[in-house]
Amino acid sequence: MAPKKGLLQRLDEGVVIGDGGFVFALEKRGFVKAGPWTPEATVEHPEAVRQLHREFLRCGADVMQAFTFYASDDKLSNRGNESSKKYTCRGINDAACRIAREVANEGDALVAGGLSQTPTYLSGIGKEATQAEFKKQVDVFVENKVDFLIAEYFEHLEEMEWAIESCCKSGLPVVATMCIGPEGDLHNNSAGECAVRMAKAGAHVVGLNCHFDPFVLLEAMKKMKVALDEAKLKVHMISQPLGFMTPDASKQGFIDLPEFPFALEPRICTRFDMHRYAREAYELGIRYIGGCCGFESYHIRAIAEELEKERGSLPLSSEKHETWGKGLKMHTKPWVRARASRQYWEQLKPSSGRPYCATMSKPDNWGITAGHELLKQKTQETSEVEIQTLQALKTKK
Amino acid sequence: MAPKKGLLQRLDEGVVIGDGGFVFALEKRGFVKAGPWTPEATVEHPEAVRQLHREFLRCGADVMQAFTFYASDDKLSNRGNESSKKYTCRGINDAACRIAREVANEGDALVAGGLSQTPTYLSGIGKEATQAEFKKQVDVFVENKVDFLIAEYFEHLEEMEWAIESCCKSGLPVVATMCIGPEGDLHNNSAGECAVRMAKAGAHVVGLNCHFDPFVLLEAMKKMKVALDEAKLKVHMISQPLGFMTPDASKQGFIDLPEFPFALEPRICTRFDMHRYAREAYELGIRYIGGCCGFESYHIRAIAEELEKERGSLPLSSEKHETWGKGLKMHTKPWVRARASRQYWEQLKPSSGRPYCATMSKPDNWGITAGHELLKQKTQETSEVEIQTLQALKTKK
Amino acid sequence: MAPKKGLLQRLDEGVVIGDGGFVFALEKRGFVKAGPWTPEATVEHPEAVRQLHREFLRCGADVMQAFTFYASDDKLSNRGNESSKKYTCRGINDAACRIAREVANEGDALVAGGLSQTPTYLSGIGKEATQAEFKKQVDVFVENKVDFLIAEYFEHLEEMEWAIESCCKSGLPVVATMCIGPEGDLHNNSAGECAVRMAKAGAHVVGLNCHFDPFVLLEAMKKMKVALDEAKLKVHMISQPLGFMTPDASKQGFIDLPEFPFALEPRICTRFDMHRYAREAYELGIRYIGGCCGFESYHIRAIAEELEKERGSLPLSSEKHETWGKGLKMHTKPWVRARASRQYWEQLKPSSGRPYCATMSKPDNWGITAGHELLKQKTQETSEVEIQTLQALKTKK
Amino acid sequence: MAPKKGLLQRLDEGVVIGDGGFVFALEKRGFVKAGPWTPEATVEHPEAVRQLHREFLRCGADVMQAFTFYASDDKLSNRGNESSKKYTCRGINDAACRIAREVANEGDALVAGGLSQTPTYLSGIGKEATQAEFKKQVDVFVENKVDFLIAEYFEHLEEMEWAIESCCKSGLPVVATMCIGPEGDLHNNSAGECAVRMAKAGAHVVGLNCHFDPFVLLEAMKKMKVALDEAKLKVHMISQPLGFMTPDASKQGFIDLPEFPFALEPRICTRFDMHRYAREAYELGIRYIGGCCGFESYHIRAIAEELEKERGSLPLSSEKHETWGKGLKMHTKPWVRARASRQYWEQLKPSSGRPYCATMSKPDNWGITAGHELLKQKTQETSEVEIQTLQALKTKK
Repeated sequence: MAPKKGLLQRLDEGVVIGDGGFVFALEKRGFVKAGPWTPEATVEHPEAVRQLHREFLRCGADVMQAFTFYASDDKLSNRGNESSKKYTCRGINDAACRIAREVANEGDALVAGGLSQTPTYLSGIGKEATQAEFKKQVDVFVENKVDFLIAEYFEHLEEMEWAIESCCKSGLPVVATMCIGPEGDLHNNSAGECAVRMAKAGAHVVGLNCHFDPFVLLEAMKKMKVALDEAKLKVHMISQPLGFMTPDASKQGFIDLPEFPFALEPRICTRFDMHRYAREAYELGIRYIGGCCGFESYHIRAIAEELEKERGSLPLSSEKHETWGKGLKMHTKPWVRARASRQYWEQLKPSSGRPYCATMSKPDNWGITAGHELLKQKTQETSEVEIQTLQALKTKK
Repeated sequence: MAPKKGLLQRLDEGVVIGDGGFVFALEKRGFVKAGPWTPEATVEHPEAVRQLHREFLRCGADVMQAFTFYASDDKLSNRGNESSKKYTCRGINDAACRIAREVANEGDALVAGGLSQTPTYLSGIGKEATQAEFKKQVDVFVENKVDFLIAEYFEHLEEMEWAIESCCKSGLPVVATMCIGPEGDLHNNSAGECAVRMAKAGAHVVGLNCHFDPFVLLEAMKKMKVALDEAKLKVHMISQPLGFMTPDASKQGFIDLPEFPFALEPRICTRFDMHRYAREAYELGIRYIGGCCGFESYHIRAIAEELEKERGSLPLSSEKHETWGKGLKMHTKPWVRARASRQYWEQLKPSSGRPYCATMSKPDNWGITAGHELLKQKTQETSEVEIQTLQALKTKK
Repeated sequence: MAPKKGLLQRLDEGVVIGDGGFVFALEKRGFVKAGPWTPEATVEHPEAVRQLHREFLRCGADVMQAFTFYASDDKLSNRGNESSKKYTCRGINDAACRIAREVANEGDALVAGGLSQTPTYLSGIGKEATQAEFKKQVDVFVENKVDFLIAEYFEHLEEMEWAIESCCKSGLPVVATMCIGPEGDLHNNSAGECAVRMAKAGAHVVGLNCHFDPFVLLEAMKKMKVALDEAKLKVHMISQPLGFMTPDASKQGFIDLPEFPFALEPRICTRFDMHRYAREAYELGIRYIGGCCGFESYHIRAIAEELEKERGSLPLSSEKHETWGKGLKMHTKPWVRARASRQYWEQLKPSSGRPYCATMSKPDNWGITAGHELLKQKTQETSEVEIQTLQALKTKK
Repeated sequence: MAPKKGLLQRLDEGVVIGDGGFVFALEKRGFVKAGPWTPEATVEHPEAVRQLHREFLRCGADVMQAFTFYASDDKLSNRGNESSKKYTCRGINDAACRIAREVANEGDALVAGGLSQTPTYLSGIGKEATQAEFKKQVDVFVENKVDFLIAEYFEHLEEMEWAIESCCKSGLPVVATMCIGPEGDLHNNSAGECAVRMAKAGAHVVGLNCHFDPFVLLEAMKKMKVALDEAKLKVHMISQPLGFMTPDASKQGFIDLPEFPFALEPRICTRFDMHRYAREAYELGIRYIGGCCGFESYHIRAIAEELEKERGSLPLSSEKHETWGKGLKMHTKPWVRARASRQYWEQLKPSSGRPYCATMSKPDNWGITAGHELLKQKTQETSEVEIQTLQALKTKK
């Protein structure tokens, strides 16, 4: 078998579809704990992780991103998380890579190793300690011969640059995405500035992931594109937004919305929202188009179906799906068969069924950032007293 | 190993938790086609079906319902569905039972075989032909030694009675649920009348599934309970509602809502909605409490967590979940840690993030029922011309 | 000049248009106090009352209802209201009649004297005392030669019957409306029962006013019509609903909604809502069609414009209004000129501009009615302590 | 009697409260025609205009702005408006001044003469012709000895400067407000630039009126304040926003919203919204605080009540109103008495009662401005054919 084409060649030649969000999907399926959000499921329930990879592969994903989110040693032992007692960073990352490779080889997908922002950085311990955390993950990725690296989910440009530096030492292609929006990073660097400095730090593909809905994220991507063009930097762009609508989010994104993380259901995007996202991202020049939290396999399939012409084929699971609701031609009820058209679904404005709820929320916004006492990370669990103090603080805001 | 306790003994002694909706969950994962909604995935992708069973088991389900929905021969060959060419009713049902048994034996769960309303009935071909379809499925269930039968998703009481009659011949316990709401069945039998006649037809457990949200469904269950009490019928009750909010649905339920089936996302229930559902169902005297379309494993877990005291234990996957958001104590951001309380999540009214959409929709309602020409079923696919005729009809309504 | 045709002849021959709500309109203009809601403005600011009558006359009202709402002695002296110290029941009612007559004679309108439910009844003092209050008002109406009487805004059928009895002694035509909805009166008499007993008590025109939006009110009117038809009672029907949308109100109507009375703005009906109301009321057989609280003159004009053909003419103020937005042909901006059509306004679903608010509210519902200690009326103002007790009660509900 | 203090002295010493919107209020009352929006009511129905002035006076307005909006000769004869045939510009303006003065002298209020943007400017006829229109109105104002002039409702800074120049010739104090928002004028001058150039053109008080809700307008006022401060210009500031919520309006404001002008009801502000507006405006340093379209007398009263301490007194009509709903202490129902508190009304989020409507709308936006063919003004009425052409255009947008 011929070796697979690499990421950068694929991006030069056409579009690469990413996968969706493992953390949220596996939380709902019962394998990940909201709060710590760590990926010990790769060791505890490999069949669940493997099955989710397979769904994304069948729905058109060209990348199997190993499930290594927040799998740094400092995060595994943070705030009472017991994962570090049972499993090592190395063990979890290693299992993740093997599962991703297994499924990737069932198709033509690439494997990516991913790393993210660290408690070490947030606690202000400095560059050396932070990069030591990154190195432990990168070492495992290199040993497992992943095809490329993704440094994702960074809120501070400074830590993002340190991560890119760590990744570049591997010699692999490096994708870098921050979890910021149109208002820029938490140290008040603009989105455009972030894009330019990520590229200058050595990332081959730069962009954004998580924290905002597809359409808010594309607003920020536009700013990045303008800045990259102005700086004459030739890098590829990537967007991996939320699968949740967040027009009301403020600078820090969906985490500050009161519904995060357990009542986001009314905000979940439809497959038709994703058609629109895919088209708008493509037209903006983005060539690595995927998703993050809330993005499920049928959302990825919608991207692949929207870009059928550009990609030259439909994904495998379109066997079980006709684009734009055409499968409803087989429905029992005639008025449901009448919905079998693109126009119907494109124009529909879906109701929430929740007339006692508002349509937008005010985000929590305490105005504190890296270095603040309340953001210092620690290993013991938060106590009842601390929670009550926080709740009292919340009431005052 | 001691034999498992049977369904009726479990219901006499306490509460039995059902599972959620396979059709909708597997459609999103890419293994079921919306429109025909048939379960050939049991043959095509048994690992996907098995994994979904396992999620429900870990989340507290006491029943593994074999994935046999709409798996009657007449449905498999309806309106251009090609499943009947590749697979037989027998093959699909047989595979479904084996997968369900495999996972049931990983815990203490029971296996149920399920059958539903038929195109044969809707086309007005009569009792004998309709029951012939039922018999083919029941025979497979008996051969596979399922623990009990579920006749579910019937819109007409008459067909429901025929199905119960067919099921009773097996000698197994029979659960019967109609997919109707507070306004009764499509032949204008009241919900109470339906309950009484299901019980008189021989069902051991009677109730409702699908078509309405948990709270609308419980309104209908109240009517059933009153009628059963008045008729002095001692049967157990079951509710398996949608995982979607449908306060605006009319008599025929969520299928008539314009968002069905591809834009129901803003209506998805939260886990906290399910806590309330479980408590209210239990207090109403319902002892078989489960879900249907839109009900995912974390919704089932919420039922199990709400009924922890009544059941004496938490489900397995609560290892990865603390009730009422308590796991957020480990979150990085202090204002998210402040959400780690029951009061917070119980009082939250989740916003939709969709300010350009309404909160309720007007259902389609063409006022036609069994016997009408447009409801006659046929084997060939609906043509483009037929769809356009239907759309013109829709515009006029 | 030929004498004006009387009410009953007009109703026999065609449609009679009522006026709108004085209390709410004059509260906003600064002449009525919310809380007591008494009409001492007839003495204090006759020009304001006169001008409002004139608006309704120009907008098509066939009836000038003297502004005598809550102008009974027991109400004028209730809970710290100082009106009774300055003015008498007789003085206020007398001034009201004279103003109404003055404006009525500027056109072809009739004058009606109105009376409403009393604190005396609510405090359980009995029939004799209650009717004594009614008599004082009726005497003034008779002296002022009003054309007919309206006994309106009764929540209890018993008091309504007493009022009709008192009114009938005058020999004038009697219109009777209760402020109830589809669920009937506060003593659990159905809407149909109320209609029948109002007619049997001697009212010539029966129906409903206030408390519910036009469409909810018409639901209740349908029940009244069915009951009147079944009882073979030949009386005319009247509807005078709110000018506020209240789909979420419960049995006691808009007063229980949390927005009452100072934040009802987002619920205000448009003129196009009133076109629909007028048409549906007319088709139901109602011939006295008017409005109550929230109904302003342009709402009355919309009724008159909708019934132009039935009435044979447009109201005076249609000089300054073309039906269905046609006047926009003269607008400066072309895209506003494009709105000059019936179809545009008939199909428009108006947004609230309030994305942080819900679309429906849960009514307060304390489940107490006539006779309950908290409903006993008294002359002194409610104290701060009493308010705090009530607020504590509210929190517990 | 001592002469009244002038506008500028009042602004130096404290706060001046403006009045509300005559055009919208009198349209609803039946005296103004939507579309042309011209004020011939001053001649046709002086008692209606007088009564509205009186309401504002009693509610706390310190200014009686003569009802001369759009009363220029070119506007009175635009697009089929017949007012110019019956009445002259001079006649209408003269009557307006006399009525305003009559009511002003019932209290301590000042009289202002107002002029607005002209069809002449929009049609591109030039400065001389435009100022000729202004002069005709200013001459009447001077003859009538008004206390100051208001040049309001200008969308183009250029025409605004011409108007200020015309007004300054009178020697009277000049107030200048544009009807723009945070995005600036229709020739892309920023809000800040507009403020600076209005002040440099000679206006003594500068700010904004109409087109946006109070809170959006204050956003634009903040930009104006920053620019004025930077330019070291010492002028007073004025804000006279809409009484409608418009968070979804785009650059041209509420006119582009699909609900304009006949379905804005769900957007009407409550009196409590106006308390917040008054406080925020005052804190921003604005000393002339009033309202425009949709602002009724009770909204003005809310401003006066919020600023009771700053003004040293309550308005006359507070006799019939206790601040923050305190009058509800006298209500019949105990749960309504429980609403008699500031906290209750301040925290209430009012529902719309319209669950089938969205909360925000997409504005029409055809992207055409002064000079465009479709904006040329003409004397004959728009024909049916022209309307259909416009509607076809609208569908395409």
